[in-house]
Amino acid sequence: MIKLAEISTRAPEGWDKKETEKETEKLVKKLGKLHHNLYAESKQSVLVILQGMDGSGKDGAVRNVFSDCTIAGLDLVSFKKPTEEEFAHDFLWRVHRWVPQKGMLTIFNRSHYEDILIQRVHGWIDMERVQKRMNAINAFEDLLQFDNNTKIFKFYMHISKEEQLVQLQERIDDPEKRWKHNDGDWKEREHWDQYMEAYEYAINNSTTPWHICPVDQRWYRNYFIAKTLADNL
Amino acid sequence: MIKLAEISTRAPEGWDKKETEKETEKLVKKLGKLHHNLYAESKQSVLVILQGMDGSGKDGAVRNVFSDCTIAGLDLVSFKKPTEEEFAHDFLWRVHRWVPQKGMLTIFNRSHYEDILIQRVHGWIDMERVQKRMNAINAFEDLLQFDNNTKIFKFYMHISKEEQLVQLQERIDDPEKRWKHNDGDWKEREHWDQYMEAYEYAINNSTTPWHICPVDQRWYRNYFIAKTLADNL
Repeated sequence: MIKLAEISTRAPEGWDKKETEKETEKLVKKLGKLHHNLYAESKQSVLVILQGMDGSGKDGAVRNVFSDCTIAGLDLVSFKKPTEEEFAHDFLWRVHRWVPQKGMLTIFNRSHYEDILIQRVHGWIDMERVQKRMNAINAFEDLLQFDNNTKIFKFYMHISKEEQLVQLQERIDDPEKRWKHNDGDWKEREHWDQYMEAYEYAINNSTTPWHICPVDQRWYRNYFIAKTLADNL
Repeated sequence: MIKLAEISTRAPEGWDKKETEKETEKLVKKLGKLHHNLYAESKQSVLVILQGMDGSGKDGAVRNVFSDCTIAGLDLVSFKKPTEEEFAHDFLWRVHRWVPQKGMLTIFNRSHYEDILIQRVHGWIDMERVQKRMNAINAFEDLLQFDNNTKIFKFYMHISKEEQLVQLQERIDDPEKRWKHNDGDWKEREHWDQYMEAYEYAINNSTTPWHICPVDQRWYRNYFIAKTLADNL
């Protein structure tokens, strides 16, 4: 059982930034090659799920880690507030249609986990529904793996509450980042502890394991994700 | 445990055709009204699955039973041989996108069950995959029910081997039915016993129960489906 509070949000002690950045460059190139093979062979597919609090660097991870991937074989799907049509279906409906077909690598920026995170934290659904949805998620992820040869990589973008403050404040102070500022993010921050509890539940009850990615230093985040993918593809 | 060979494919002894047809007319009208309410309220949805051997009268059931339903609230999806894009995904992918949204009644003419029927009979998948798919189907149908308030009605269109012969022969003899004739149907007929075994497995291992609909007399088929729906909506 994972307790997030016990896991560091930073690079391991003594890790060198410069060297890591060099290593990351190589890994990003290696990932690009592996991805090209995946696309050319079209026998399996890859689903990368990025989940984390606001400011945890999901967008930056997409920009930095997949920059050498073949565009034709890459899909990025960002899940926002569900549309009216999406709300009129089960919670996996909008997600299932975007899963990768053979040969593709698809990145989910947020995902079906939102439906047991934000919805739970705000009490829009009760724990019975959270559990049922968790079971449905496990069956769904299992289906993608056994029936379509999909490799699933789920990253929990592990940011500290202090670093989130820095990131959200930057969105106000830095004109180049201001387009990302959203009052709602500050409101969600007030529910920090409940979010941590909800994330822990999701991580501890998933049959497909999560990778806990320390993100307080963005250079280590990039390394961690690139390394995980390049080593396992 | 259901054994199909032990269940009649005909109306119960002494059932009167004329009276049943009159009763069916009333049921079809009642179903039309219930369907209109479903559509107007948009709080739940209905999924009707029709599965059966070639010639078991799935098309006729659609034509006769739903004739009073509100067209705007009715969807018919016929599943044929999967496209290349569909084959490049898990077997539930093409099905999930067509499930009814709240307020809709959707009819599946054939369904995800084909993937544990024809594929099993021809040995394209092994029993381990059949079992995994069966579990995935149960989880999927459960999801639709608990998360989107979908009522699921699954009808196995129970035809005798003798009556199938009559139906397939008519498609050759009757010019009006000739468009339905397909050499492949006669080939599938040779696997009759294996199909019965595969259907029994699907019926006996489904957590959402099936309705076994006797279809040798089409007037009884219409009555059976109309009655089941009108009584349970």
